[in-house]
Amino acid sequence: MMRGRVAYAGAIHEARPEGLLENARVRLADGRVREEHEVVWLAPFEPGTIFALGLNYAEHARELQFTKQEEPLVFLKGPGSVIGHRGVTRRPADVTFMHYECELAVVIGRTAREVKREDAMQYVAGYTIANDYAIRDYLENYYRPNLRVKNRDGGTVLGPWFVDAADIADVNALELRTYVNGELKQHGNTRDLVTGIAELIEYLSGFMTLAPGDVILTGTPEGVVNVNAGDEVICEIDGLGRLVNTIASDAEFGRVSPTQQT
Amino acid sequence: MMRGRVAYAGAIHEARPEGLLENARVRLADGRVREEHEVVWLAPFEPGTIFALGLNYAEHARELQFTKQEEPLVFLKGPGSVIGHRGVTRRPADVTFMHYECELAVVIGRTAREVKREDAMQYVAGYTIANDYAIRDYLENYYRPNLRVKNRDGGTVLGPWFVDAADIADVNALELRTYVNGELKQHGNTRDLVTGIAELIEYLSGFMTLAPGDVILTGTPEGVVNVNAGDEVICEIDGLGRLVNTIASDAEFGRVSPTQQT
Repeated sequence: MMRGRVAYAGAIHEARPEGLLENARVRLADGRVREEHEVVWLAPFEPGTIFALGLNYAEHARELQFTKQEEPLVFLKGPGSVIGHRGVTRRPADVTFMHYECELAVVIGRTAREVKREDAMQYVAGYTIANDYAIRDYLENYYRPNLRVKNRDGGTVLGPWFVDAADIADVNALELRTYVNGELKQHGNTRDLVTGIAELIEYLSGFMTLAPGDVILTGTPEGVVNVNAGDEVICEIDGLGRLVNTIASDAEFGRVSPTQQT
Repeated sequence: MMRGRVAYAGAIHEARPEGLLENARVRLADGRVREEHEVVWLAPFEPGTIFALGLNYAEHARELQFTKQEEPLVFLKGPGSVIGHRGVTRRPADVTFMHYECELAVVIGRTAREVKREDAMQYVAGYTIANDYAIRDYLENYYRPNLRVKNRDGGTVLGPWFVDAADIADVNALELRTYVNGELKQHGNTRDLVTGIAELIEYLSGFMTLAPGDVILTGTPEGVVNVNAGDEVICEIDGLGRLVNTIASDAEFGRVSPTQQT
């Protein structure tokens, strides 16, 4: 089952896709059917702890000229960075390189502590798509992303749907694709994850307790390019739908950009 | 005003100190007065994004043999790591060095975006005490703490009280003290913060929006020592009270420690 969370006519509603996914229509829990653009999409669930992986596809690590580290490179993202489908992400005018990162997001469904990898998939509730934006300017000469790279407003796009784990036949063989203004820019497959989903749950639950609603953004494949204000970015994953968002300039957010201050 | 949040007799209550702080009695919002140990203390508020500072007291940075970096070293902590006053923190048997870190926690009260340091204190709702435990074994040869060091269950102790900003005459001159089993081990003063509270708010709000309930753990002064199962750790800050917690072994948490597996 796929379910989203949308704001419409004064309230927040659970939503389901209506007809084919490509139809871009939603059915609210109360029966109303609306076009995708008529509602405000929120993240499909309220995330607990948000884990994100760096350099978890070998080709992407090579692309960034980093060498593989011995254990998974995991960092946290704050709840304030989250927006939903069709949300808008600001690109500050004073940075030179901001890129999207299409990622499979794994949602924990049961409290997990010291789980072995062979049992780990039982702790997965389902999946969604994440676009984990990064501002490369601030990426240090090291592999650990910092707040200015990864924790900006609108820097974690989640959705549109939460999809039950049972509905995905083989999560280790899903195609990921990112389109910028309709052009395919990034293409990968979850079979190329350096540390797979089960191993990530084993690793994290080995030193801390994972809770329902915690989410793991599993990393992005190669093919990241700079985006600019006005760009439409679509992240697509087999079986999960397509996550759309747009890039906006400082002006959209009431800021005077540095180049306009003369 | 000081207020805490406690669980007692089937519900969660707002609590106030009753009489002198040293009396260790609490008055629930419904009028009942109880001894401090008769209730279960929760964190005094539900934190939003939890920011923590590394190496923000010069003497402590020297103690860890790190050199000062150019900008504040800020990382995130997950909500799953938070416990309240009188909580229990596990010390895994297979680590060699786990230390407390007594810190002033600054709670944001108003949405803050691109705030200048001279206005920043208007965005502070109040303060509490944090004990930001670290497991040094996993601290890399670099200044950025990772998940295994800083994000364990019970690794972020907050409380006992949320104290309104207006009740603290000079937040830049508060003594911090940590006692282990009654012995003073750590002693500092917020006047020695490398990056002060106002500058931290300016820095963070410069690239992301801060929300009410976000909390900044401002770093710890020198004087960290290893703690062991059974130790009682008390962090004390002028005007904020004393935050007590205890260290427990793997056995307390149903784990067989490595040394018992022979």
